[in-house]
Amino acid sequence: MVLFTKKILSLTLFLTFVFTTTSFANDGYNLWLQYTKIENKKLLKEYTETIRGIESIGNSETIKVSKDELNKAFSGLFGPEYLLKQNDSGNNTLIIGSESNLAKQIRSKLKKEYSQIEKDGFVIKQIQVDNKTHIVITGKTDYGVLYGVFRFLRELQTHKSISGINIVDSPKVAIRMLNHWDNLDRTVERGYAGLSIWNWHTLPDYIDQRYIDYARANASIGINGTALTNVNANAFILTPHYLEKVKALADVFRPYGIKVYLTARFSAPIEIGGLKTADPLNADVIKWWKDKTAEIYKAIPDFGGFLVKANSEGQPGPQNYNRNHVDGANLMAEALKPFGGIVMWRAFVYSEHDASDRAKQAYTEFVPYDGKFKDNVIIQVKNGAIDFQPREPFHPMFGAMPNTNMMMEFQITQEYMGFSTHLVYQPKLYEEVFEADTYRKGKGSTVAKVIEGSLDNKKLTGVAGVSNIGNNMNWTGHHFLQANWYGFGRLAWNPNLNSEDIADEWIRQTFSNNEHFVNPIKRMMIQSRETVVDYMNPYGLHHIFDTGHHYGPGPWVGNLPRPEWNPTYYHKADEYGIGFNRTKTGSNATAQYAPEVAKKYDDISTTPEKNLLWFHHVSWNHELKDGNTLWNGIALKYQSGVNKVENMASLWNSMEAYVDIQRFKEVQMMLNIQLKEAKWWRDACLLYFQQFSKQDLPNGVEKPSKTLKEFQSMRFPFAPGR
Amino acid sequence: MVLFTKKILSLTLFLTFVFTTTSFANDGYNLWLQYTKIENKKLLKEYTETIRGIESIGNSETIKVSKDELNKAFSGLFGPEYLLKQNDSGNNTLIIGSESNLAKQIRSKLKKEYSQIEKDGFVIKQIQVDNKTHIVITGKTDYGVLYGVFRFLRELQTHKSISGINIVDSPKVAIRMLNHWDNLDRTVERGYAGLSIWNWHTLPDYIDQRYIDYARANASIGINGTALTNVNANAFILTPHYLEKVKALADVFRPYGIKVYLTARFSAPIEIGGLKTADPLNADVIKWWKDKTAEIYKAIPDFGGFLVKANSEGQPGPQNYNRNHVDGANLMAEALKPFGGIVMWRAFVYSEHDASDRAKQAYTEFVPYDGKFKDNVIIQVKNGAIDFQPREPFHPMFGAMPNTNMMMEFQITQEYMGFSTHLVYQPKLYEEVFEADTYRKGKGSTVAKVIEGSLDNKKLTGVAGVSNIGNNMNWTGHHFLQANWYGFGRLAWNPNLNSEDIADEWIRQTFSNNEHFVNPIKRMMIQSRETVVDYMNPYGLHHIFDTGHHYGPGPWVGNLPRPEWNPTYYHKADEYGIGFNRTKTGSNATAQYAPEVAKKYDDISTTPEKNLLWFHHVSWNHELKDGNTLWNGIALKYQSGVNKVENMASLWNSMEAYVDIQRFKEVQMMLNIQLKEAKWWRDACLLYFQQFSKQDLPNGVEKPSKTLKEFQSMRFPFAPGR
Repeated sequence: MVLFTKKILSLTLFLTFVFTTTSFANDGYNLWLQYTKIENKKLLKEYTETIRGIESIGNSETIKVSKDELNKAFSGLFGPEYLLKQNDSGNNTLIIGSESNLAKQIRSKLKKEYSQIEKDGFVIKQIQVDNKTHIVITGKTDYGVLYGVFRFLRELQTHKSISGINIVDSPKVAIRMLNHWDNLDRTVERGYAGLSIWNWHTLPDYIDQRYIDYARANASIGINGTALTNVNANAFILTPHYLEKVKALADVFRPYGIKVYLTARFSAPIEIGGLKTADPLNADVIKWWKDKTAEIYKAIPDFGGFLVKANSEGQPGPQNYNRNHVDGANLMAEALKPFGGIVMWRAFVYSEHDASDRAKQAYTEFVPYDGKFKDNVIIQVKNGAIDFQPREPFHPMFGAMPNTNMMMEFQITQEYMGFSTHLVYQPKLYEEVFEADTYRKGKGSTVAKVIEGSLDNKKLTGVAGVSNIGNNMNWTGHHFLQANWYGFGRLAWNPNLNSEDIADEWIRQTFSNNEHFVNPIKRMMIQSRETVVDYMNPYGLHHIFDTGHHYGPGPWVGNLPRPEWNPTYYHKADEYGIGFNRTKTGSNATAQYAPEVAKKYDDISTTPEKNLLWFHHVSWNHELKDGNTLWNGIALKYQSGVNKVENMASLWNSMEAYVDIQRFKEVQMMLNIQLKEAKWWRDACLLYFQQFSKQDLPNGVEKPSKTLKEFQSMRFPFAPGR
Repeated sequence: MVLFTKKILSLTLFLTFVFTTTSFANDGYNLWLQYTKIENKKLLKEYTETIRGIESIGNSETIKVSKDELNKAFSGLFGPEYLLKQNDSGNNTLIIGSESNLAKQIRSKLKKEYSQIEKDGFVIKQIQVDNKTHIVITGKTDYGVLYGVFRFLRELQTHKSISGINIVDSPKVAIRMLNHWDNLDRTVERGYAGLSIWNWHTLPDYIDQRYIDYARANASIGINGTALTNVNANAFILTPHYLEKVKALADVFRPYGIKVYLTARFSAPIEIGGLKTADPLNADVIKWWKDKTAEIYKAIPDFGGFLVKANSEGQPGPQNYNRNHVDGANLMAEALKPFGGIVMWRAFVYSEHDASDRAKQAYTEFVPYDGKFKDNVIIQVKNGAIDFQPREPFHPMFGAMPNTNMMMEFQITQEYMGFSTHLVYQPKLYEEVFEADTYRKGKGSTVAKVIEGSLDNKKLTGVAGVSNIGNNMNWTGHHFLQANWYGFGRLAWNPNLNSEDIADEWIRQTFSNNEHFVNPIKRMMIQSRETVVDYMNPYGLHHIFDTGHHYGPGPWVGNLPRPEWNPTYYHKADEYGIGFNRTKTGSNATAQYAPEVAKKYDDISTTPEKNLLWFHHVSWNHELKDGNTLWNGIALKYQSGVNKVENMASLWNSMEAYVDIQRFKEVQMMLNIQLKEAKWWRDACLLYFQQFSKQDLPNGVEKPSKTLKEFQSMRFPFAPGR
């Protein structure tokens, strides 16, 4: 153990080369927490000389896992022999602990920084104490320390200098959570990465290593909540048999600052409570929810609360008893209030009895209730008014309920973006939504400000993402879709972050810091979101996916019982043109926006072309800004999407030297699938729409490989995610 | 690359220690192909001096993967630096190649050995050529070479000396295969280790690393076939869309000597062929199967054939058209014959219209057809006459159809043995079945001889095992259940192997060669099969599992529509006693055995007590050989099962020093679940049977923790595997 000479170290480097050469396989399980050995000697020297030991202060489980994480990371980044060389004596110690636990002489050096952070914020600063130099990672809570530790490790993994380090940061949003649409039989609705990672059968006694690594990964990006179960809920999760299992997960997650939430089926009092009604104003029902909530908190004192989908797509809700959303949400809010829990009540509703534009229905149903919900209710609104399309204008409810808590719901899983085989970097989409201006309090009233709570001075704020995680070895089915989990977390922490910066840090942590890799791959990721729009839903087209499973194109589907389930309802292609007129001459959905926004969208000439067919029914011969007719423009966009995927694939093929062989090949195969499917989208949609435009494909657009009839006859009864 | 001095090597050892210390996690993905670094210096020296390089001869993919496997293994066993030091020059080379590819001077040294091996057998021998010493791994085929390579690696992994190595071995059974009961939606019937490893959605373009590692693992134990799909079949697998996916898998498996088989739904000509009938004598149906088979062989020239479940548990079959099993099986056999394919026709049938003992029905239905099946048909018979119980007497069909090919079907997945949370070492069960004496051609007519083909001089022989594999990180859900996959393969290769030897080699390859670990853990594994019998189904009890999912005890279930679905049908507990009278005074199922066997089972005094209640309805006060009454004996057996699990758990707890932390903890948690469930079985069954015996529990049996009513009210609607 004492034999470390220079010679030996140089051999270590040699051996490390052998171990980490790109010919070795990497299954991707470690996500962005790769902790790859640092090969740059100068940097390694800086790090190991600046961090000669760790001193952790405090006895909480959170401090313990923070220290464990540092050891794990240093063993990887600096080599396993580093752990044997650590010492706590004297100089260049990494000190971690919360404000109240740190020595007075350290605290006094950080007064200014402490004043700048919120509850779970952190400070990472190199300071001098007693003529010695240390790096301190601290916060007002141990969770702040944990976030600081992960932030510090990000600096190391992205090869930043830590000399004179001084970082102060706090989360901008209170609730940053994943929604798992996971069923009790472990299937995942709209899940494309295998089974649910929650193995209910073996819980509570078997703690899968994944539960711990899930918590680590989430904590590393600031996620602090998880709704374990599908919003299309099963009441069984609220029975004692299952609550025991939920408690086991909550116990695993607690040190990592992650609270557990459950989806509450509105009819649970009937289904598992033996009552005859679930009427929210019925005294027995009220008592049942109070008792059930108390039972949950007895097992899980920091239980987060309920996520509820009510009176939507067949789910029971207060309207079954002629009550309204306020009655339903406040019923549960009252039960949760004594324990500090919250209700996340989803606004994703559309009625089979309402013949008006589906895009309008959530706003119509909810906005009149502004100010009526209890203060521990937060309305969870999808980013757009339809349903997680490759592109939607921001949801008109954002900013429209100033007296109501409101949170964002993004879909990380790619129900409408090629499942798990298409490389689409979604933080670009999230960023677009956050940057959108609602004009509700004048120019600059961005969606980000609504969500952060700054626009309407809200404390209960939140961002939810529908998880893309499954029990696939690499969690998300496709290595690059890990970036969507990552980027979601980063933007939930701070909706003002730049998606390109996030891509940069993700690539460096996950794959490589080599600039020859980082820069082109970053560009590829950034472009990938527009690419999927191009080959699926250009110019504001939406919901033209095949029925039910939403795998592949189905613009021809028009025979489903509810009109708003049919792609033909959304694209309205006819001999004149294509698109849904949502202006004042049409469904008047534009009136749900602030006047400045409505005005922009009502006028075809001020409507951004990316949203054109969302708001307007447009002639095939309409002239686009680039001079093309709409028909030619659509066709060229589809082709452009295909071309861009081709470019992605060929770029990736040139990157073999920078990536381990397993991930290289796996991404390569996925890109080939994406290319095949991009062509399928192009060919099927253009052949179908061509029936209406009755025009030839413009130059530059490849001929379809099959007939329309062949595309229409394709069936996928076992497509995943249903 | 040339700097290897002694000093450097000693550091290498030190670093290796750091890397392989048991404190590092091991997720179990690598199965028994761990290739753990050899710490014993003497042994390492022997190995590395005896193997100074590899020379592979031949251009096939099989030779290529054989060499890749050697490199992978040596890099692990000898350390990654070994690969840099290899040389092919001169002495101590490991030579691999099939007989026809080897140099004449080598072949001539192995004449005797070649004469001793069958088609895919192998020779591993150290020989002298031109005054130089080499180890040769050879066979008559490249597959023989591959099997020899894996056998050689087993010698190294189990730390055997290779000095003067001389091993000659051949498979004793022609078809050694896994049956996957995997559905096209990736659920697995009776699967408890996650989703199907076949990701049909991303095939054929995405080749999951698991497909390759699955092939490696199977080849390493001699498995040479896989039926990819559930016997409760879906005709869609035979459509071009899916055949393309099957082809991709066949291409991955081919180098490893593994043929692909598919389950053929008898009604496929109707469902995907557009015919109005599936009558096996109908000309269009005959043509449809011929065309379909030709289509398959065009894509997969070495396709293995069809596995068929017909007229059983709702599956369609020839009887729907008033034809019989011979008509059905021969229909497909004729289509497959020109291509060398086979039909595996399952004998697992029992009729809802036949009120007689279910245990008799397969024999009754099949034996009259002996000699009528075509020579490329093989009848697949479960090991016992009911359904994969913890213990059954051997199936009476074994040996009863001397003019018919017959293969064994074991269930590796633990439908009736605690799913994937119970440590049960099943090779002990397989061995018991193989050793059973049918007496069909006098004493010594063991089931093993029937299956090997030696009893009735058969060439088409086979053993199938219903897979326990899923996409769980460690494949089988429980680290120790990997041993059942392993041991199944070993016994399929040679049904005369000893299950204890197999456990020994598995433990050494999977965990450790340390005798302090190997010996006690081997004893634990060997005892585990009797343990599960004790706490679930002692003294020949069977099929008393809860309904449908078969999770936990349900001896009280008696309300299912078909009598033979009810546990009460099988145990027949009443005030007098318990057990199913299958003697000549009862259902006379014993008459289906050879007279010597029938005589033994007809007489309670010669019936082994382990089979007592399978054959006899016995008074609660019957005196057992140990002097206990039957009631007391049953109660004490249940308690003994619990005690044995307690011992397993405490033994494991003492083994922490020998196992990496992840697998140690995971097995520990599983054993705790097994203990909890063993107690559940004991308490629920004894409380239920006590209603009939009306006797107290004997001394030494713990009091139940719940009431019978409480046990009966437990519901598991989301138990896995359905």
